[in-house]
Order: sequence, then C-alpha cells, then structure tokens
Amino acid sequence: MKILMVIVDGMADRDVNGTTPLKSARTPNLDRLAEMGINGIMDTIGPGVRPGSDTAHLSILGYNPFEYYTGRGPIEACGAGIEVRPGDIAFRVNFGTVDGKGSVFDKRVVDRRAGRIQEKEELVRAINQKVKIDGVDFILGNASGHRAALVFRGEGLSDRITDSDPKNEGDRVGRVMALDQSAEHTAKIVNEFIEKSHQVLENHPLNAERERMGLPKANVLLLRGVGKAVHVPKFHERYGLKMAVIAGTTLIKGIGRLIGADVIENERFTGSKNTDLGLKVETALKSLETHDLVLLHIKAPDEFGHDGDFDGKREFIERVDSELEPIVNLDFSEVCLTVLSDHTTPVTARDHTADPVPVMIVCEGVRRDDVREFNEYRVYRGGLCRIKGLDLMNILLDLTGKSKKFGA
Amino acid sequence: MKILMVIVDGMADRDVNGTTPLKSARTPNLDRLAEMGINGIMDTIGPGVRPGSDTAHLSILGYNPFEYYTGRGPIEACGAGIEVRPGDIAFRVNFGTVDGKGSVFDKRVVDRRAGRIQEKEELVRAINQKVKIDGVDFILGNASGHRAALVFRGEGLSDRITDSDPKNEGDRVGRVMALDQSAEHTAKIVNEFIEKSHQVLENHPLNAERERMGLPKANVLLLRGVGKAVHVPKFHERYGLKMAVIAGTTLIKGIGRLIGADVIENERFTGSKNTDLGLKVETALKSLETHDLVLLHIKAPDEFGHDGDFDGKREFIERVDSELEPIVNLDFSEVCLTVLSDHTTPVTARDHTADPVPVMIVCEGVRRDDVREFNEYRVYRGGLCRIKGLDLMNILLDLTGKSKKFGA
Repeated sequence: MKILMVIVDGMADRDVNGTTPLKSARTPNLDRLAEMGINGIMDTIGPGVRPGSDTAHLSILGYNPFEYYTGRGPIEACGAGIEVRPGDIAFRVNFGTVDGKGSVFDKRVVDRRAGRIQEKEELVRAINQKVKIDGVDFILGNASGHRAALVFRGEGLSDRITDSDPKNEGDRVGRVMALDQSAEHTAKIVNEFIEKSHQVLENHPLNAERERMGLPKANVLLLRGVGKAVHVPKFHERYGLKMAVIAGTTLIKGIGRLIGADVIENERFTGSKNTDLGLKVETALKSLETHDLVLLHIKAPDEFGHDGDFDGKREFIERVDSELEPIVNLDFSEVCLTVLSDHTTPVTARDHTADPVPVMIVCEGVRRDDVREFNEYRVYRGGLCRIKGLDLMNILLDLTGKSKKFGA
Repeated sequence: MKILMVIVDGMADRDVNGTTPLKSARTPNLDRLAEMGINGIMDTIGPGVRPGSDTAHLSILGYNPFEYYTGRGPIEACGAGIEVRPGDIAFRVNFGTVDGKGSVFDKRVVDRRAGRIQEKEELVRAINQKVKIDGVDFILGNASGHRAALVFRGEGLSDRITDSDPKNEGDRVGRVMALDQSAEHTAKIVNEFIEKSHQVLENHPLNAERERMGLPKANVLLLRGVGKAVHVPKFHERYGLKMAVIAGTTLIKGIGRLIGADVIENERFTGSKNTDLGLKVETALKSLETHDLVLLHIKAPDEFGHDGDFDGKREFIERVDSELEPIVNLDFSEVCLTVLSDHTTPVTARDHTADPVPVMIVCEGVRRDDVREFNEYRVYRGGLCRIKGLDLMNILLDLTGKSKKFGA
C-alpha cells in the first residue's frame, strides 16, 4: 500500500466574517474525499507554535524540528544540490551589487539581487575555482534567480555568527561577527571568503559585460540564515520507504534532499501561482508506481495568504480542488491519501500562524466520520479530533500495515 | 492586542443527575461569549492529574509546574510579600496556641489558629528582631488572619524535612525531622528557630494581654508546606508582557508575585463569597489600559465545591455571569478574552479532581464554532477540541500576534 501526501501550503486560514477562503471555496473533490475518509485538525508542531514551512514539513514527515532544524542555510544548501554533512555550516546567499572603494565591508549594497540576475553559473564556477581559504573547504551551489547556497566544511566551525546581508539597500555589507568566543575563527574565515569572492566577482568578465550593458554588477555574495548541519537520518533508512517529492519551491525540494528523497524536477513546477498543477498531479500519480510515499506540495495558497488576498486564495484553492479530480478516483485499497495544510497563513495576518490545520486521511479500513466538507469549521468534529504533526507518519504507517507492534 | 484571562476557580463539576452547577445555572453572558468564540476542554496539567490551584495557575500561565512548583511554602512567602530567592526554603505558617511545660516540642497544640488571631504584626516584628540562628538568615512575613510565611536563607538548606504542624489539636508540636542525611543540618536549624520563636512569643506583652482578656495566646509557629525556591523567570521577561493579577486569594496573589506580575490589591477583594465581584471586573477592565495581560481570579465557586453545596455553587456562578456583562461588550479586535476554570471541584468529591475544564477564547479572527452554551456538556464539541493548560499561553500569544515563527 502506497502513501500519497498532498500538502497545500498555507491553505488554512482564520475567520473573516464567519468564513475562510477554504470554507467559501467550491471544493467538490476535497469534500468528496473528506466524506470518504477521517478528518481532524492538526498542530503541525504544537499548539500555539507558529511553524515555518520547513519546520512544518520536517514535523509532518516525522522529523522533530527541535532536533533536526538548525536554520534555513542547510536546507537551502540541500535544495541547491550540495551534499551537506554534519558539522558543515551553511548559508542562504544572494548575489548582490555593491558600490564604493576599499574593502568590501566599506562598500554599500545598491541592489540586494544584482538586478535579479538569472545566468550566473560562470560566476559560481569562478568563485569555487579561484577563492582559497586556509584550513577550510567551501562549496558555493547555484540556485534559481539571484540565489545561491554556501557551505563551509572544516574543523570547529560554528554557526554562532551574524549575517553579512544588511537586508536594507544603502547599508554597508555587514562584517560577520562572532556571537560567542567559540565562533571567532569561523567569523574570520567567512569574512575572508566574502572579501576574496568580491575580488573574483569584481574582476570577472561577465561583470564587465553587465556594466557595458547598463546592468548592475553581481559583485558581492550576501550571506544569511546560517545553520550548522546535523546528522539527519534518511527517510528510507528510517521508514524503509522510497520517497518522492513533487515541488516547485526550493525550500521543500531542500527538505526532500535533506532526508534523501527523490526530488522530481520539472521547470513547469514553479512553486508559484503559474505552476502546472495538472502536471504535478499527473507526476505524483505516476511516481506512486515507483515510490512508496509521494509528497505533492502546492505552494501558491500560502503566497495569497502572505499577500492578504482572500479572493485569490479562494480561487486558487478551487483550481487545486479541480486538478485533484484524478485523486478522487484512486483505489484506496492500494493508496492511502492524506490531504493537509502545513500551517495556517491567514489573509488577515499575512504570515504563518499557529492555528491548527485541517487534515484528512482516506484509505480502506479507516473509520469514516460524518464530515462532509473539508474546511476549518467542520473537520475538528471529525474522527481524528486534534492530532500533532509529528504523529502523522506513524498513523499513516499503521493504516498501511507498515508499523511494528510494540509489545506482544 | 491585550489579553484578559478570567479564571473561575473550581467552577467545573462532575455529573449530578445529568447536570452540573454550571450547566444548570442561567448564564446568558457566558453563553453569548461561547457563541462569539472557540470552545473546548482543557487538562490544566494533564489528563488524570489532579491540580492544586497553584500548580493549575502556573501551568495556565505557561510555567511547567513539574519544573517550577516546589511546594506551597515559596508561593505563600511571595504572597506575603517576601522576596524569595533560589535556594531559600519557605514554609506556610500558622500562629497557634500551645500548652504545657519544658521544650516547645513537649507541649501540646490546643488551638492551631490561636483563636483566629487577626492583629499580630507586633509578634512578627518581635520574632524577626529577637531570634538569632547561627549561620542562617530568616524572614517571617505576615499574612492575613492567623497566617504567616517563613523563609530561611543560607548555604546548603534542604526541603527534605517534615512539618512541625501536627495538624490535629491535642497532639504535640512536631520536631522537624530530616527525610535524608543532607537535610539534618536544616532540621536542626528549623527546630532551633521553633524553640527560640516560642520563647519570644511566650514572653511577649501582647500574649500577656491576650491571656488577661481570656484569649488563647499566640505562642507558637506551626510550620508546613516546606519547599525550596527555584529560579522562576519573570512573566515580562518570558513573554515581553506586563501582567496584572486581580485576586483576593493569597495563593493566587503569591503566584502573581512569584512571576513578577503587578498584584492589584483592594480590601474588597476577599477571595471568598463576600467579594466585590463588580469591583473586580471593573478593576480588571481598567488594568487592561495599563497592562498587556490581566488575570481576573474568582475564588468562591471552588469553596462551594469543597462544601458540597450544589445550589450555592450554581447561584454564585449566576452572580459571576451577571457581573461579567461589561466583558461581553469589549472590542475583541483589541482584547483577546479567555474564560476557564483552573480545575474541577465537584460538589460530590468536595475536592479538586482531574476532569478537564471548559475553556473558551474570544477574539477577532478566531474560528468560531457552533457551541452556544458554556458548560461541561457542550464545550468539548467545540473547535479547540481538548488542549493542555501549558499550551494555552502559546495559543493566546499566537492569536494576539505576539509569537515568534519557528523556521522560515
């Protein structure tokens, strides 16, 4: 029996005049599935704990985020295809533009995204080849747009350091500072890297060309979200299951790679409103033939939440519902389906909140409840009551006959 | 956004012929609030764990009682206005009357409350001034009626000792015993204190006067509820919120002082049936102007529970409901209200039980459920399902936009 996990990012909401985007959306397929299954609400991490998408997904997949989440850097580095090892420190990176004289730390950031540069493989390669730092290795990994990820590998590295990204344009590049004594060596190394990579970028022919074309030079790496990688057991080792991730978002792909899942790439999976939902569903169903657990991630409802766009969110949820139609016709004696939101992103709060999310499970044998509508106002009366994200995998393993008995 | 927490002590009950005092009470205001909010049941500490009011309140305020509760002594000492420090050992104290010859430990307790003595500041002052114990400091703090609190401060004190209060009149004053070897030094000190304070009291002019008037002498301190104080982080440090406590009960005021809240005193807040409920509600609403979180504590329903008085409890709950009327008209986009009981005090059990308590939360954005009556038989069907006391603060912080995101 296979497992299909459909995670609709930020789909859940709070009350707006007695309704929510999900409640007011026409969702015949989700409602039909709710009717066929068991429903409830879920605290992805814990009651009152506001999840990020990264910590929420770790928890849903059975990885306690308080143990395995060490900041965004290591996950972005995995997402950028770097094989991160325990003890590495990793950063999210922007290619940016600085202007001024002297050291990189005397210069001001004039564009945090270097004119949203797209093609920068050459620059990444040049830094990886030309920058040398005594006593430490580094890997710069390319990512989409102006983004990259950076990993340092060596003895005694610490993530107790500040960002170099000043966040505000017009400010100077931040000199990385140690937050405690044990991190002084690391701060020195990272600052040396920022200076040396700036020299390589400043003198690179691609930037001379950009200057001629009137484009901002991509002449600085801005570092943030540092985290020290810990050992994360692979999903197949932990559960004996081969897992696939269908996602457009780097962060979720990063989570997938972090736990050793196969990330199915397609440029039409954009992680945004213009994604090819139909193709994602089709790919998910096809992946069920080759994998034991397929995670289908749909990002856009969260974006509408962040934008405060009630109608946009409702309409996109209706699109999601409509594209989920093939899933209604699955053979639930062969597939165990769960549909849920990773966290609540209210259009009123425009950010994640800790309100519990709706969750349903459909599979043969599950105790069907009398919930007939999949929304925040109905599912809490369902047969699952209120569960925790960290328990979901165990529940799914049990329903699919994959769990071990504890005792006799 | 402010938080108003209305805690009705021991309001919840068990089934008596299909009803409870709360269910049978006419409570239009509580019912209206339930309708406007989200409802559920709550295990203040944990399912099946019978809470005291002290441990329940700690838990509700986000302080794990298994970590921060070390006996009644330290809380009563805070309530008596003593600044308790980690490592101190503290006791609840009764002024009592002993009769007999020789050492205090040879004498019998003839009145555990010294004729319910009221004015005893002079005696407290005399003991603080005249009793000296080598190698240790002590503070005796006055409290209401025959009550006081006592703190010892010094190296290596232990709370692994027995009470001196024999509980039964006619018994001898108990010699404090060490429960393990590490407490032998402490037991010796405490016994020395009991003897010396007895001498001071016995010879005090106030007791000579009481004897002349035919009143029992207040000539002994009876110690119980010992606990060793631990470091308790202040509420405003922990949550960044300025907190006020409106309560008549010393124990709840003690909890407030323990966590650094402002305790709003008024002699009309009696912590009993004759309290001025209207003034308490008015004071709570006024305190919302100066504080971020206001805890309004109402004690009497618990007393009716302990007395086994079903009708008295029902009638008092109706009075509470009627006095809560101004709260119904609050602007819930500015105030997040929670109403709950700290524990169940069934009129049948005449003591606290572990049955979960009703809880409601009213504020803008909360997912309103279809609970229309606030009682033990309705709220469990509400949108909160079943939560834990220790999670309540996080839920309130999230609903009022005060919590931090964990992850990205």
